[in-house]
Amino acid sequence: MTHVQHTGEIGCLKVSSKSPPASVAGAIAGMIKDSVAVDIQAVGAGAVNQAVKAIAISRGFLSPIGIEIVCVPSFADIVIDGEFRTAIRFAVEPRDAAAAAQVSAGAAAQETPVE
Amino acid sequence: MTHVQHTGEIGCLKVSSKSPPASVAGAIAGMIKDSVAVDIQAVGAGAVNQAVKAIAISRGFLSPIGIEIVCVPSFADIVIDGEFRTAIRFAVEPRDAAAAAQVSAGAAAQETPVE
Repeated sequence: MTHVQHTGEIGCLKVSSKSPPASVAGAIAGMIKDSVAVDIQAVGAGAVNQAVKAIAISRGFLSPIGIEIVCVPSFADIVIDGEFRTAIRFAVEPRDAAAAAQVSAGAAAQETPVE
Repeated sequence: MTHVQHTGEIGCLKVSSKSPPASVAGAIAGMIKDSVAVDIQAVGAGAVNQAVKAIAISRGFLSPIGIEIVCVPSFADIVIDGEFRTAIRFAVEPRDAAAAAQVSAGAAAQETPVE
């Protein structure tokens, strides 16, 4: 039950506290433009901060070409070097995709045959 | 040009690195339930991390009652104690609201008179 299931692909980006936000933003924008849903994974406050900055910057890349994005943060239990850590995952997707899912659900519910 | 302009009210939450995420999550969930769009402001990596955790936790409060939320991060220049700082602002809103805006825009564009 993932909210990005309506897109064809999912790209995964691992962001650290040393990741340059502008570079990550470029990667996000590129994938979104190619209709690839993006999952960003970050462990630790520094990494989460860089991820959020990257998403904010990527909005500036995508907005001029008419793509508005939203993100959905969630927790993920992962194992790093044999230790359990809690990561933050950001699902980044076009607002349209979220809307499209709603629209098609609504259309299916409301649709009536014309003839 | 704010993406929450279609809601009646906007609640603003300032989150610090010491804010307990569960409490902030409760505040977010309460406001979203009351159809109040939420703006969360955080300065610094620790505060941004707490804000993101709060949003992720609030999803767990709202999802069981059928409300899915999305967030849109952006930069905001603010002044704290006479110094310019860059804050992160998270606009939190129901996915439905984002979809509804798209649906009505789409409906207006596609609508054709029946008679």
